[in-house]
Amino acid sequence: MSNPEQASILCEQIQADLGDLDPLTRKVLLQLPPPTPTDNRADVDRLRLALEHQVGPVTVPLALMSQIHQVCSVCGRVTATVSMTGWGWQLIDLEPGDTAQEHYGLAIDIGTTTVVVYLIDMSCGAVLRRAADFNGQVPLGEDILSRIRHAANPGGLAELQKTICDTLNRLIGRLCTPPLVPTRISAASIGANTTMVHLLLGLDPASLSRSPYIPVVNNPGILTAQDIGLHINPLAPVYCLPSVGSFIGGDIIAGVLVSEMDHREEISLFVDIGTNGEIVMGNREWLVACAGAAGPALEGGVTTHGMRAEPGAVDRVSLDPVTGVRYSTIGNAPARGICGSGLVDVLAELFLNGLIDRAARFSAGQRYFVVVPAAESASGQDIVVTQADIDNLMATKGAVNAALEVLLESVGCNWQDIRRFYAAGAFGQYLPLESAITIGLYPDLPRSAMVRLGNSSGEGARQVLMSQSKRREAEALAARITYFELNTNPTFMDKFKSSKFLPHTDIDRYPSVKARLQARRRRL
Amino acid sequence: MSNPEQASILCEQIQADLGDLDPLTRKVLLQLPPPTPTDNRADVDRLRLALEHQVGPVTVPLALMSQIHQVCSVCGRVTATVSMTGWGWQLIDLEPGDTAQEHYGLAIDIGTTTVVVYLIDMSCGAVLRRAADFNGQVPLGEDILSRIRHAANPGGLAELQKTICDTLNRLIGRLCTPPLVPTRISAASIGANTTMVHLLLGLDPASLSRSPYIPVVNNPGILTAQDIGLHINPLAPVYCLPSVGSFIGGDIIAGVLVSEMDHREEISLFVDIGTNGEIVMGNREWLVACAGAAGPALEGGVTTHGMRAEPGAVDRVSLDPVTGVRYSTIGNAPARGICGSGLVDVLAELFLNGLIDRAARFSAGQRYFVVVPAAESASGQDIVVTQADIDNLMATKGAVNAALEVLLESVGCNWQDIRRFYAAGAFGQYLPLESAITIGLYPDLPRSAMVRLGNSSGEGARQVLMSQSKRREAEALAARITYFELNTNPTFMDKFKSSKFLPHTDIDRYPSVKARLQARRRRL
Repeated sequence: MSNPEQASILCEQIQADLGDLDPLTRKVLLQLPPPTPTDNRADVDRLRLALEHQVGPVTVPLALMSQIHQVCSVCGRVTATVSMTGWGWQLIDLEPGDTAQEHYGLAIDIGTTTVVVYLIDMSCGAVLRRAADFNGQVPLGEDILSRIRHAANPGGLAELQKTICDTLNRLIGRLCTPPLVPTRISAASIGANTTMVHLLLGLDPASLSRSPYIPVVNNPGILTAQDIGLHINPLAPVYCLPSVGSFIGGDIIAGVLVSEMDHREEISLFVDIGTNGEIVMGNREWLVACAGAAGPALEGGVTTHGMRAEPGAVDRVSLDPVTGVRYSTIGNAPARGICGSGLVDVLAELFLNGLIDRAARFSAGQRYFVVVPAAESASGQDIVVTQADIDNLMATKGAVNAALEVLLESVGCNWQDIRRFYAAGAFGQYLPLESAITIGLYPDLPRSAMVRLGNSSGEGARQVLMSQSKRREAEALAARITYFELNTNPTFMDKFKSSKFLPHTDIDRYPSVKARLQARRRRL
Repeated sequence: MSNPEQASILCEQIQADLGDLDPLTRKVLLQLPPPTPTDNRADVDRLRLALEHQVGPVTVPLALMSQIHQVCSVCGRVTATVSMTGWGWQLIDLEPGDTAQEHYGLAIDIGTTTVVVYLIDMSCGAVLRRAADFNGQVPLGEDILSRIRHAANPGGLAELQKTICDTLNRLIGRLCTPPLVPTRISAASIGANTTMVHLLLGLDPASLSRSPYIPVVNNPGILTAQDIGLHINPLAPVYCLPSVGSFIGGDIIAGVLVSEMDHREEISLFVDIGTNGEIVMGNREWLVACAGAAGPALEGGVTTHGMRAEPGAVDRVSLDPVTGVRYSTIGNAPARGICGSGLVDVLAELFLNGLIDRAARFSAGQRYFVVVPAAESASGQDIVVTQADIDNLMATKGAVNAALEVLLESVGCNWQDIRRFYAAGAFGQYLPLESAITIGLYPDLPRSAMVRLGNSSGEGARQVLMSQSKRREAEALAARITYFELNTNPTFMDKFKSSKFLPHTDIDRYPSVKARLQARRRRL
């Protein structure tokens, strides 16, 4: 897992131009005529009528009526903030004077491990600032299943809800520098997996991990900050990107939205691999998806010297018969271990250099490969990759390959039909592309057809914050995507077992890898 | 002021048939298919879709999502309660099984002195039960102005808000007998004057009594029980009948609604007299209104032996040259004083019997009239009506006459154009009709054209609870009625001074009184 501040900068590279903006909230400048003996309408009614003249039907919550009275009695020029509710507008704030340009919202990516909050200028959609941190729930459970277990303890769900709110409120506090105060933030949108959404909303996640895997809610609609406990404008609308189900959440819908694969005629493949992996395939006619545990290899979990992408982690590795091993570490710190991207490099380089075979086995007798010699490491011990480490990574790769086969079979397509590839999430951003192709984790497409989406969960959240048509598209996507359950699929295990070759059982699917192998072998 | 339990029964006489019911909330019976591996939609989405199939777009508040999950996991047959929000429905309750016939709402009349709550069967609109009590705010201020003053004290507004809520919650508790619990009540509507609405909503009423008399709000729209603090379903919609302005409130709009004077071609006059008096005149083309202090005479305020309509109050009086004075008291208790209706009788009888002249003056030398001799009274002292008492009542009558003249002049009509008369409120119900005509407080129309509306504030609340078209009509009425300010009207004081004759300066406006006078004098 990448370090939170690294993840937070990902969004910059892909801020789509959203065209006509139609954000969750609008600010409307009004010039209210003062009351006269012949025009003695009440303050609230006067304001509502003026607003309705500009935006259509508006409801006014009781909580704002006193404020309206105070603002209207001192000032004729006022700025109203209105929020899109189900089918109309609700007033959520009224400020004296013209504050129409001071319009702030939040795009939030809640990952199981990392949380990123982007402060958005809602007058134009630009990212003004970002803040990231680990999800405060991590100490209560490292992964999704352990969170669900924790929620079943007495008080556990409330604790998890409060913890993620605390994380968000802390990040919001960091984003707000004077004169901006959190209560002037008008809206928020959230990209997160289904479990994270349930925990944020205080909804029991137990059914997410229990057959038939029915969430409490897939599309929560537009809630308010006070419903959840976000310390922004209490009436601010909060929109969670909708889920397909327990295993395909709003974070994945965000990614598909950002990729625009649902607009194209050609078939695209979308992959988001972390502890869990999600795959979406399709085009503007159809979309299918599956999900499953990807194994801990890329998270640096059970690997001998595996670690998260923190300072001291070996993140890039190359191997040359002449110059030997070269590596880099995050932060250029003394090497402490190997993170996911380093491990993928190691496996690719071992394979290209013939140190492991196509079944990812070391030659007879060899048990491990030294990446960082003891003299250079932080601990004074060799940092190695063992056969077991390689087997773990091969299991991840094999699961992705097998899942893709199931999807292809389900829609009657061939691998040659896939024309574009999108890599989402932090792994997608940092995983070395060529090595990921070499080991067969990614397909071997023309490189111009392979796109890293970066933090597409955050970018998707920004898009739905700013655009009603994107919200509608997200909801249509969630309703359209057909989910295939792998656990109950009879052919998945067969495909999984037979997909543990480098780069693939059928090497002709990997022409560029085949060419590099042949080139290397000629050099040897 | 009538006693609360008396006022509470008024509604029975005029429960209009509302035709097609379209109440604030609906109950919808649903048969939900159980989730299957191929239909694994989330609980909330499954319910929402089933509901939308029957009623159109529905939003689901976060507060109900857990409940939906619990109910849906045990039961396929469920009853949803949905509330009409601005432009769509919101789910406010979900119960297992078929509870569609158990659908309860409240119609509430909040008077400055008396509060009446009616429990309504929302499946048909029938009044099931009623409860009444004095408004708990009375000890904090007897009348509207003293309440407004109390609200200006530190904490005063919050105290007044809590006090009226406490009164309502106590009455609601009395209405609910097992198995009905308050939280199963789905909706409430309220008829009240503008100040009472402001205090109920916790809105500063200061501007209501300060030029230019601008309320905070005239039409609060649909709020929720939890906004206000009513201990019914917290999400229950609460609809306050809209006001025209500071002096014509939702109670008067309710009365006009119940009278249906806005449907007729002929011109009607609507009068609600209490401590304050409100007059509405018009037809389906136009409506005008005015309001003002009516003086305390009818409330038994400053009158020598005046008292409220409580046990022991003389409420009816007749006078005959032969048989002398006859009177009745409320509850047949020993006489303790005279209430408004008794005073109107006394004035009429004194006039008809020639004991006072057309200027309402006793003959030379007489200072008072004994209604109850000392031997029959509770205190052992004579209960009398003095010239000062008569002058007070004449001021009330004069104010009503003058206000009517201002309205007639403003629309260019004559008194002969008035074809129907509606007496609203508790005074309208109990005031002796013939005596009120004799003293010129009411117009002298064919008796079939004179209607007592009873507690039209409560009945109007019932109508808007049960009918969206009545809500729309109420809002249209509030927007249509033109209010004439009497205090700044240059001719009002002149008209007031010249209207202190019995029954009127122009006795030809009162043909039946003229005939009775002539008949009596022939007898004498």
